[in-house]
Amino acid sequence: MTDKLIIFDTTLRDGEQSPGASMTRDEKLRIARQLERLRVDIIEAGFAASSNGDFECVRSIASHIRESVVCSLARANDRDISRAAEALKPAARARIHTFIATSPLHMEKKLRMTPDQVHEQARLAVRFARNLCADVEFSPEDGYRSEPDFLCRVLETAITEGATTINIPDTVGYAVPELYGQFIRQLRERIPNSDKAVWSVHCHNDLGMAVANSLAGVKLGGARQIECTINGLGERAGNCSLEEVVMAVRTRRDYFGLQVGIDTTQIVPASRMVSQTTGFVVQPNKAVVGANAFAHASGIHQDGVLKARDTYEIMRAEDVGWSANKIVLGKLSGRNAFKQRLQDLGIELESEADINNAFARFKDLADRKSEIFDEDIIALVGDESVTPDAEHYRLLALSQRSEMGERPFAKVAFAMGADEFRAEAYGNGPVDASLKAIESQVKSGAELVLYSVNAITSGSTESQGEVTVRLQHGGRVVNGVGADPDIVVASAKAYLSALNKLHSKVDRVAAQG
Amino acid sequence: MTDKLIIFDTTLRDGEQSPGASMTRDEKLRIARQLERLRVDIIEAGFAASSNGDFECVRSIASHIRESVVCSLARANDRDISRAAEALKPAARARIHTFIATSPLHMEKKLRMTPDQVHEQARLAVRFARNLCADVEFSPEDGYRSEPDFLCRVLETAITEGATTINIPDTVGYAVPELYGQFIRQLRERIPNSDKAVWSVHCHNDLGMAVANSLAGVKLGGARQIECTINGLGERAGNCSLEEVVMAVRTRRDYFGLQVGIDTTQIVPASRMVSQTTGFVVQPNKAVVGANAFAHASGIHQDGVLKARDTYEIMRAEDVGWSANKIVLGKLSGRNAFKQRLQDLGIELESEADINNAFARFKDLADRKSEIFDEDIIALVGDESVTPDAEHYRLLALSQRSEMGERPFAKVAFAMGADEFRAEAYGNGPVDASLKAIESQVKSGAELVLYSVNAITSGSTESQGEVTVRLQHGGRVVNGVGADPDIVVASAKAYLSALNKLHSKVDRVAAQG
Repeated sequence: MTDKLIIFDTTLRDGEQSPGASMTRDEKLRIARQLERLRVDIIEAGFAASSNGDFECVRSIASHIRESVVCSLARANDRDISRAAEALKPAARARIHTFIATSPLHMEKKLRMTPDQVHEQARLAVRFARNLCADVEFSPEDGYRSEPDFLCRVLETAITEGATTINIPDTVGYAVPELYGQFIRQLRERIPNSDKAVWSVHCHNDLGMAVANSLAGVKLGGARQIECTINGLGERAGNCSLEEVVMAVRTRRDYFGLQVGIDTTQIVPASRMVSQTTGFVVQPNKAVVGANAFAHASGIHQDGVLKARDTYEIMRAEDVGWSANKIVLGKLSGRNAFKQRLQDLGIELESEADINNAFARFKDLADRKSEIFDEDIIALVGDESVTPDAEHYRLLALSQRSEMGERPFAKVAFAMGADEFRAEAYGNGPVDASLKAIESQVKSGAELVLYSVNAITSGSTESQGEVTVRLQHGGRVVNGVGADPDIVVASAKAYLSALNKLHSKVDRVAAQG
Repeated sequence: MTDKLIIFDTTLRDGEQSPGASMTRDEKLRIARQLERLRVDIIEAGFAASSNGDFECVRSIASHIRESVVCSLARANDRDISRAAEALKPAARARIHTFIATSPLHMEKKLRMTPDQVHEQARLAVRFARNLCADVEFSPEDGYRSEPDFLCRVLETAITEGATTINIPDTVGYAVPELYGQFIRQLRERIPNSDKAVWSVHCHNDLGMAVANSLAGVKLGGARQIECTINGLGERAGNCSLEEVVMAVRTRRDYFGLQVGIDTTQIVPASRMVSQTTGFVVQPNKAVVGANAFAHASGIHQDGVLKARDTYEIMRAEDVGWSANKIVLGKLSGRNAFKQRLQDLGIELESEADINNAFARFKDLADRKSEIFDEDIIALVGDESVTPDAEHYRLLALSQRSEMGERPFAKVAFAMGADEFRAEAYGNGPVDASLKAIESQVKSGAELVLYSVNAITSGSTESQGEVTVRLQHGGRVVNGVGADPDIVVASAKAYLSALNKLHSKVDRVAAQG
């Protein structure tokens, strides 16, 4: 059996299904490029048939990614599979991932189909997909809770019809490592043609064991593909976390004996990009990518680490892309130095105009903030306004005041298309007043479902504030991000950024888990 | 073998060792009370010998907790053990937990002792502890990386000398479930008197497998105690998370066949209290206690959940203490209704004066915010100023203004002891200006190492902002929290709250991991 472990990233599909984590096409493309830098083997780019928006996302990623295989999800029917194939046409290497539920509960309650009907539909779907694409993955949804005899028959058929990868989802995160590993081993032992396919694991983290379950599927079960997401993003408690599973296989190569192709130094940049884009914070005590993952507090530990690094460290921070906060640029830095720094950070801007736009913002920030860190630069280009196509709303001016005992007050001027608007409002606080002022003119009717602030560069009160605003309207959820040393200005920028996304009428309905 | 699984919570000891998570005595006592409501079997309250502050914390918790066993950590020497015993004197049920490192790396590089010296010191320490306390736990630090023959000798001696619990730490988070479970089973099989002690697991989450490793130690290894923390708080990537391990044992009782005594409905309140107190956010995709843990986004999933709850849910949100945001009180609510609500939320205030103080703040908030949620009430009483003994600094008045293109400006009035001070300053933003104004008078010299904001009750721009400010000064780290509908006012409150903690000269040095 091969010792290569395939890393299948589904941040853009299963990850995006987290309530509130929906992303625009540009955002997904930016993350896909980072996943390619990370050298994931397969990028699940979306679920093409679920909406026109998702179709465009998959097609856009298929057009730009050259190294990784690009994959689209599809339910087990001809229409879904055709849409997936069409969206994947520009891809250098494409995969269609089709699925149907096989557990008694899901077949009866959700699909309202008999086992024989499900079996037949799986057969036809894989056959149809295989005619459109040489690389076909089949998943029996809720596979871990399926009846083994039935599941064996369905999977044998899928392989006979040409499925090249068989993936066993623990859809509800119910598995424990020993049982999940045995389950996969038994399927592989019982299915006569099981060696014709690569076996894959897909685990959810509801009981906190997604990583261990995935690895048991590999070690005990013989799977050679792991489906995972950056930061463990995903519905409910999320999916198996890419950074944890990859570092476990690397750190315990003595036990797993497997090779992964990941460039681990791209892990932390990928984590930050996904967190910033979705507004999903990474907790400080998150393994590998949390702010504290490599920090040592107690006297005994610090002493131990000074005496011999291995006493308390099994991984090195630099191996996963942590680098100390570095002051990289200042107000005297020129355009070339700025451009070079973008390249070093792996940031590709689309055009010279985008670079000029970002450089102008950089100079503006450098006037107000003496030390510019890498994080500031990432925030700068992560700011929506760098992609001017989406910029229907733009902040022009803001002034606000508050005083304990008085009602906070804000005046805002902003552009809406070609027009300029001015508005003022009172509110509970200066942020509330500013957003109310904007809303008094825009009348979006959107509901604010998340408001969070992080200091981008800590260590001084000169930190920039990065504000994430999540709005919900008409069944859609969008995230807007704004950064500024003034938290009220950052909030207004974030609000307008979210409104821009609501304005760009992408019709999107997420769909499977 | 018994089917009772002992839950040993070390949030207040190993959890507190997270860089930045240090807590005051009052905060630790409040959390200890919540742990008792959660019905944890053992509360590790601190490391009495590490500082006078920690000694006082252990003693205070030992004085107030009646149901749970209260435990103190102690290095394997007479002084540490005596201090632990002294701090535990008021306890209804006490445990001394003594440890010494047994791995070659730790013995050679950190302790600079020979194995024989370590063996002898372990013997003397357990003997000494057992003379002071009937309940003694012994941990070989870095046990999982220790040489098995040597470890067996040390542990056999510890049991002979009267250790009632033997705990095997995976100090650096290096284990995988199968190997860790086998390691514990082999120790138990090889050590002749192993059945005289309860075996315990203590796992760190560096590779994302702390929960699975702990459970393998139980299922394969025969351990009957799990050491864990709320939210998986702890050094680096943290410890095994209490909520995950408890819900895994409950949800998969078919596999584990074990009983836990935890009142799971107290899990979410405990999680919130620890997160608010330490300033460590819980990521939305955290199992069990994350905001999204029970949320369903995608169309297919929503449909499935509506048709049959079990299709995508293996636990019920209400079983772990999630309740929908409820509007519980308004500006017309009286003191009795407020007091009743505090009781329902499990909040005990020390005196009638504290209740009056909290009620006054509640009325003040209700004047500015139309809907008061449970979260608002928790924030209200979590606010430092409810415990007036610590209140050296108090905010009296604040006014600020900012305008794009101008320097933001703030004027602050605050009390410092019996004196009142006024100060003004310009800054990068209104928060920066406010903090600079305070600092211009206080001259604490503290470094701001964390600034974060969360909207306590989302769903409208009327949300309150809860600000956490973490300050570092002279080797100490403190967290201050402030809540107010005006984010600038909340920031100033949080800053003063942190200054109050720096002011209360608790001498504290954290120590083992």
